[in-house]
Amino acid sequence: MVNENQHTGSGSSSSKSDGGSSSGSESSKDSSRCSTPVLDADRHERLREKMRRRQDSGDKWFSLEFFPPRTANAAVNLISRFDRMGAGGPLFIDVTWHPAGDPGSDKETSSMIIANTAVNYCGLETILHMTCCNQTKDDITAHLQKAKRLGLKNIMALRGDPAGEEWEEEVDGFNYAVDLVKHIRNEFDDYFDICVAGYPKGHPEAESYEADLKHLKEKVFAGADFIITQLFFRSETFLKFMKDCQAIGITCPIIPGIFPIQGYHSLRQLVKLSKLEVPQEIKDVIEPIKDNDAAIRNYGVELAVSMCRELLDSGMVHGLHFYTLNREVATTEVLKRLGIWKEDPRRPLPWAVSAHPKRRVEDVRPIFWASRPKSYIYRTQEWDDFPNGRWGNSSSPAFGELKDYYLFYLKSKSPREELLKMWGEELTGEESVFEVFTCYISGEPNKNGYKVTCMPWNDDPLATETNLLKEQLEKVNRRGILTINSQPNINGKPSTDPIVGWGPSGGYVFQKAYLEFFASSEIVTALLKVLKKYELRVNYHIVNVKGQNITNAPDLQPNAVTWGIFPGREIIQPTVVDPVSFLYWKDEAFALWIEQWAKLYEEESPSRMIIQYIHDNYYLVNLVDNDFPLENCLWQVVDDTFELLN
Amino acid sequence: MVNENQHTGSGSSSSKSDGGSSSGSESSKDSSRCSTPVLDADRHERLREKMRRRQDSGDKWFSLEFFPPRTANAAVNLISRFDRMGAGGPLFIDVTWHPAGDPGSDKETSSMIIANTAVNYCGLETILHMTCCNQTKDDITAHLQKAKRLGLKNIMALRGDPAGEEWEEEVDGFNYAVDLVKHIRNEFDDYFDICVAGYPKGHPEAESYEADLKHLKEKVFAGADFIITQLFFRSETFLKFMKDCQAIGITCPIIPGIFPIQGYHSLRQLVKLSKLEVPQEIKDVIEPIKDNDAAIRNYGVELAVSMCRELLDSGMVHGLHFYTLNREVATTEVLKRLGIWKEDPRRPLPWAVSAHPKRRVEDVRPIFWASRPKSYIYRTQEWDDFPNGRWGNSSSPAFGELKDYYLFYLKSKSPREELLKMWGEELTGEESVFEVFTCYISGEPNKNGYKVTCMPWNDDPLATETNLLKEQLEKVNRRGILTINSQPNINGKPSTDPIVGWGPSGGYVFQKAYLEFFASSEIVTALLKVLKKYELRVNYHIVNVKGQNITNAPDLQPNAVTWGIFPGREIIQPTVVDPVSFLYWKDEAFALWIEQWAKLYEEESPSRMIIQYIHDNYYLVNLVDNDFPLENCLWQVVDDTFELLN
Repeated sequence: MVNENQHTGSGSSSSKSDGGSSSGSESSKDSSRCSTPVLDADRHERLREKMRRRQDSGDKWFSLEFFPPRTANAAVNLISRFDRMGAGGPLFIDVTWHPAGDPGSDKETSSMIIANTAVNYCGLETILHMTCCNQTKDDITAHLQKAKRLGLKNIMALRGDPAGEEWEEEVDGFNYAVDLVKHIRNEFDDYFDICVAGYPKGHPEAESYEADLKHLKEKVFAGADFIITQLFFRSETFLKFMKDCQAIGITCPIIPGIFPIQGYHSLRQLVKLSKLEVPQEIKDVIEPIKDNDAAIRNYGVELAVSMCRELLDSGMVHGLHFYTLNREVATTEVLKRLGIWKEDPRRPLPWAVSAHPKRRVEDVRPIFWASRPKSYIYRTQEWDDFPNGRWGNSSSPAFGELKDYYLFYLKSKSPREELLKMWGEELTGEESVFEVFTCYISGEPNKNGYKVTCMPWNDDPLATETNLLKEQLEKVNRRGILTINSQPNINGKPSTDPIVGWGPSGGYVFQKAYLEFFASSEIVTALLKVLKKYELRVNYHIVNVKGQNITNAPDLQPNAVTWGIFPGREIIQPTVVDPVSFLYWKDEAFALWIEQWAKLYEEESPSRMIIQYIHDNYYLVNLVDNDFPLENCLWQVVDDTFELLN
Repeated sequence: MVNENQHTGSGSSSSKSDGGSSSGSESSKDSSRCSTPVLDADRHERLREKMRRRQDSGDKWFSLEFFPPRTANAAVNLISRFDRMGAGGPLFIDVTWHPAGDPGSDKETSSMIIANTAVNYCGLETILHMTCCNQTKDDITAHLQKAKRLGLKNIMALRGDPAGEEWEEEVDGFNYAVDLVKHIRNEFDDYFDICVAGYPKGHPEAESYEADLKHLKEKVFAGADFIITQLFFRSETFLKFMKDCQAIGITCPIIPGIFPIQGYHSLRQLVKLSKLEVPQEIKDVIEPIKDNDAAIRNYGVELAVSMCRELLDSGMVHGLHFYTLNREVATTEVLKRLGIWKEDPRRPLPWAVSAHPKRRVEDVRPIFWASRPKSYIYRTQEWDDFPNGRWGNSSSPAFGELKDYYLFYLKSKSPREELLKMWGEELTGEESVFEVFTCYISGEPNKNGYKVTCMPWNDDPLATETNLLKEQLEKVNRRGILTINSQPNINGKPSTDPIVGWGPSGGYVFQKAYLEFFASSEIVTALLKVLKKYELRVNYHIVNVKGQNITNAPDLQPNAVTWGIFPGREIIQPTVVDPVSFLYWKDEAFALWIEQWAKLYEEESPSRMIIQYIHDNYYLVNLVDNDFPLENCLWQVVDDTFELLN
């Protein structure tokens, strides 16, 4: 996922970004000579610094608010939404805090866990909301400690709604958001960036608009870094509020909260909760069309776009915060029409980065998890050190086991029934497995008329890059070379190439051709004979589920298979074939046959036994063609293998 | 310098080479993820492991013995000889220990300092001899500690000659080499590789040949790793000795000491010292030609070649140790005729590596010291950590000051009179300086008929690689762009390319075009205007002696300008343009005008004032063309600059 703006410009002092003693990660070692902040200032800056840089560069931005889902299934969907909406390039997202929903727990629907997933698995800069009323100091400290441990760096400090109807002051507790701000600064120094809420019309419970502004100033002076406002219906409301804030000495960024009206009922409910009044001119439009959802949404988009334009044109607004209500269409539409949705987000690296502060230097990964980045992050979450510059020696920290296939951020988006339609209600032999692989590659429907849009090793349709190899891949899968990962060789394409490009512009990217597949021992025997004549041109690793391992790799050194050369930078090599990691990946790759596929069928059913047979008897093979400037020889290797078999 | 054999083959477990707790460097951090032993097993192995690997691979090797010089000038010459003979690929050299010459002192002629220079500045695996008689345990421990501190890893443990005519046993002292071996193992565990001497004819003072063999066995069993023998005149002598050793259980490598006869007197002297008898058949040849040095040397070479062939053909001998007497011709001739002198040594990296154990992971350096690697090593000798994989962030350890231009390993090989002939007895203006630069590039004699074979910034004639740019360099130097460092762009040449290749075979090397020069402020003003239109394609750093610095480099990040892609390896990027290091280099580059050139002339002489003027007013400029796949644009930049000036 890409949530970072690539047009970082030169001259910013990104390497100085965490000069503060308590800021940034606890565990990243700044003393290491290798830890240059290399490609992407955004990965090294705090949120408030990102905002400042955007303001300086005049680069407008947006952010997105979500609430935690109610069910595990909804969580799976929300995470896909994070991935999709993250691709548009929000500066951050925020996750609201629902005291009734056990928000600090480890439940998959808790605010804490959703925010954790956004940061670590979707790579999104994230603000976690936190309310303070009706909670002890110790509870709050525990929540904050947990947030820090999970890699969360930003808190939206709120009072929260009173427990009963009426507000009662608590002795020894937190009564106002300002108490929470002070508590965070007292207990965590400058670790967190703190956001507070602003009310353009004044807080409904405040004595007056002026009194409310005074409270806001107190929150800022207690240590808040920026303000996000409650929604409003007219740009003048916000602009007046902003001027009033500045007049009393509030100088931090104030971000307008934008609520694109998406439906009659959601508007009414929100208005009731926020005690706002909908202007008459809006009511006049909406009332007559209140049963026509599409019409209301169109109107809402129109209204939001024109209000946002006024805000941006005022020159006082640099970023817009959207209340999405966990929906995509209206917000995306507004952002696209405003021209601040990134249509073709540049990838900082070929893989989806994580936003955990301890991973901010990470810029090398084994290629094996290319289609399963969340699994990779999960299995390396306990690491204290992340490879930077080089993958390094093979005595690196071990990978955690992946037994938790049920975890919502690792689960397939498709339910069992859909998977059965794609992969076959009933398998008749190894060939029917070959067919599934072939259909996934070709995009053609299977014999029952269903398209195969995901595989156990890849929950998404074929990547554009893999499409470059489609014809050959189709051919070899049909014959039992069951490919799960591949990349073409690239000899210096511009880093802006829409398919294989990554990193800042002005650079060149390179790849060695890579092919990874399952194959029967018969095929492997022939393959090994063929590989002899390629000597060191082709490096191979061949392993079965028992761990019998055949390789011609010199020592146990990693082989860089993707790298980039950029103006004024050191070389970046984001993916490697690491022999040691391959043995960890092997366990996962073989287990996916069983966990994701075989278990769709009854125990001892023929279908299940076919998958079990493949699991027990096939080999997992990876091949690298080291001669990247020449034509990829791996297809020739495969052709020779088939020829030998005939 | 290249003393390593490139044909390392695959499969050796180089990364496990210093599993021992006390072996290897004190300061290298094996915990760092980046410290992969990447390119060259030889840099990571102990000498005894290198021997074992050569023995396993059947790759024959040689080693060279030198004695410490008597004068500082002789030391300068010996170091050049190390560089030249090091290029032939010895497995190691050794430096003898002369108790009378204060061998452990800091004098530039001491055994300790010569061995230190060989290891650190010439990158040669080195054995330091050490004798033990007439010395206290504390003295010896102090010598060993010093050797370890300097990066020496191998000791030849000897008894040494008695102080008087007759041997007297010392109470509480060391009486035999075996005592020294035991002492080293007691005090330094397994840190040092220990070599001991073997006497194919028996030690002259031994009771018998058999008794001497027993002493040798004691030395080996006390912890010696291998044996180098005294010289001998017949291959049978050595082969019998070797069999006798094996018969009594000596299994370590035994390396024959080869003495190519180089002259009548040196032979007589050596024979007297070693109490050996020259066989009659040799005497018969030599006596009649004893006044014909050339004839004796030819005979000596012939004799050595045929004896070495017999040894190698026996299958029992894998390496040959040469007593060079600090001379080059005869030994080199023998080695070339045997076919074990490396005519075209493959460079493991584009620059000369150091053999200090703490530098064994070093694989990145700033390009600035390309022609002054010994100065770079000197200025970084206090570092505990060396860049590996990436140069890293700019807060790296600072460079030591270079005030010691007089140090023998940094000094010009040419005496003052020669330099004056090359650079001008009398300068008449800046143009006469331009002419010196131009003649150095072109290879044409200057107007007084002398060739300019070195410059203050480069003590050697133009590198073959720079020759690729000769025509353009000549043109621009003539006009006052005084180049001191440059490289052409290379877009993927084979790593075996004789001019720009480096690293193991089967790889591809790349370069960004680089140009570094001094120029007047007038030229720099025009240059800066021209550079505007190249934007980030050309990164520049422009600085004067006062440190006024102009650059368009993003942040303070290093720019990789040389890198290589190899089969089954991570990317290697051995040279970078580092903005921070450039400011250290700047001081050295400007100081060389004064230290090496201006000081050739009388104070206040016009010649000296011209150099001083350039030193005070010129700028040091470096340019990198980031678009390495395109035609080098730096010449266009320079042409445009001259055009603007016209």
